[in-house]
Amino acid sequence: MSTPTFFEGPEKKVELVVVEGHASLRSLGDVFWHEVVAAADAQVLSKLEGSACDAYLLSESSLFVYDGYLTMITCGQTRLVNAVRVILERIGADKVALLMYERKNEHFPDRQHSTFYDDATALRTLVPGEALRFGDEHDHHVHLFHTTAAYGVHAPDDTTLEILMHGLAPEVADRFVGASAKSGQTIANAHGFDDLLPGFAIDEHAFTPAGYSMNALRDSDHYTVHVTPEQLGSYVSFETNLDFRGRFREIVQGVTDIFQPRSFDVMAFTPADSAKLSLSLPGFQTKDRVLTRVHGYEIRFWHCFVPTSEAGEASPVPLG
Amino acid sequence: MSTPTFFEGPEKKVELVVVEGHASLRSLGDVFWHEVVAAADAQVLSKLEGSACDAYLLSESSLFVYDGYLTMITCGQTRLVNAVRVILERIGADKVALLMYERKNEHFPDRQHSTFYDDATALRTLVPGEALRFGDEHDHHVHLFHTTAAYGVHAPDDTTLEILMHGLAPEVADRFVGASAKSGQTIANAHGFDDLLPGFAIDEHAFTPAGYSMNALRDSDHYTVHVTPEQLGSYVSFETNLDFRGRFREIVQGVTDIFQPRSFDVMAFTPADSAKLSLSLPGFQTKDRVLTRVHGYEIRFWHCFVPTSEAGEASPVPLG
Repeated sequence: MSTPTFFEGPEKKVELVVVEGHASLRSLGDVFWHEVVAAADAQVLSKLEGSACDAYLLSESSLFVYDGYLTMITCGQTRLVNAVRVILERIGADKVALLMYERKNEHFPDRQHSTFYDDATALRTLVPGEALRFGDEHDHHVHLFHTTAAYGVHAPDDTTLEILMHGLAPEVADRFVGASAKSGQTIANAHGFDDLLPGFAIDEHAFTPAGYSMNALRDSDHYTVHVTPEQLGSYVSFETNLDFRGRFREIVQGVTDIFQPRSFDVMAFTPADSAKLSLSLPGFQTKDRVLTRVHGYEIRFWHCFVPTSEAGEASPVPLG
Repeated sequence: MSTPTFFEGPEKKVELVVVEGHASLRSLGDVFWHEVVAAADAQVLSKLEGSACDAYLLSESSLFVYDGYLTMITCGQTRLVNAVRVILERIGADKVALLMYERKNEHFPDRQHSTFYDDATALRTLVPGEALRFGDEHDHHVHLFHTTAAYGVHAPDDTTLEILMHGLAPEVADRFVGASAKSGQTIANAHGFDDLLPGFAIDEHAFTPAGYSMNALRDSDHYTVHVTPEQLGSYVSFETNLDFRGRFREIVQGVTDIFQPRSFDVMAFTPADSAKLSLSLPGFQTKDRVLTRVHGYEIRFWHCFVPTSEAGEASPVPLG
């Protein structure tokens, strides 16, 4: 089957927490993490070493390795489940305290090597688990596989925020085609990230001919941004483990102000009963909302979009 | 790649008009039309002969053959382009006055035998044409391939209305699982179609274990309804060539009242400047609107949905 030229921005993501008392995941070393990344059909572009985290910038997204957990995000046609398999072969499946595997619905699922169901079924041969869908199956949604073994949230500030943005304003997308940093300033900071989230060390990469990825570290906090500016399927993801609870609306508004998407999803993980989160941004309507508890977390999902006030023209579809 | 058990309701559709003075398409006969249907990997279940039209009810949707044009709609994993190829081999591509090929975005595109791009590229080897997309590529949308040879709308009442409904109310969907007609009444009329569109002869089929298809004829007007009630991907399509312009809102409201979908698309074809159409139904919000002129038609698209007032739970995803 064929599709027009495109790059699949929407990602797969795994978060893996090891049991208490386990040796530091960071001590497994660069050679091992390069193997893990290669297993997913990606490669390491660069590494930022922080006090609490090794942040690897990848040819397809990012890997953050902490002592007790890791977050790996890959886009395109990568096979993230294969990376999970390599990690579990090394540490042993019985050392997994919690594994969560997410997959955003793709623009061109026919070009993927597997469906979410394939991935979840494969993961369930490694660790007991079950699957959920956040959002309408006919519309934007995120699938989540999670282990079912008993788990309690360990840290009171154990939060995750994902903002998955579709259809960037064309003038914003253009700035990520052949982007380059100006002297004395990163591309990230030229777009206002340092104002929104100050004090982070930044490792960034502009892709040829188009695209942009960055990892940012500040003590035990990270955030990461990946931009697919191609017009057919333009997409940006933002992910952070920063404790966003006091600044939820401000961060979502700040990030969406930078990229001006036509629509976006938010996934938010917080310890249960620790935050009341509501989302109402000027110019956007909320179409879908989900709130579910899993293992002591509240997991929330929103899909928001810009309503159209007037009928637009149909879009030409270039044929091969 | 695997997906959970499902039936792909969203359809492919072709409308083909032959040049003036061409022999009647109806005269090509049942044997030929059965071949055409078989080429798409479907089969004829029954036939309703009207004064102006032969309406074939198919294992996957419908075929309406008029003297001067035909409309063929197929769902599931059918290959409608192959049927077009068989028709053009018989009549000759130079006898095509207008060909329009539509494809609604599927729930599980990874399970299709081709993409829209494949289909449009194949059609362009048969007849010169180009392609458009109605609706956001990241959301509900309909692709349209149309021939580019000069064409003018021949009849002032040449209209088409499609209502493509997703996510039926579960109690409505249940009525189409193992449905059967009560004595003296069709299933269609038990659901109120005779009140909404009176005087049509009806040919209907309830599928085992689930699903429902019907064709309806009244002189030169037809309408057709296809119901996929399975919970994962529940879907109904309604299509008619009835001149709906004076009753647009009433018909859309009547049809959506019967099925109570969570969201729906409307595609409406009317001769240019012959109708002002607006769509605002109680309980629905409009997310997307398109208006484009092609060959003397105005083609309009809307996507409407029921806004959620409260957060719902995530949906369990059964794994194999």
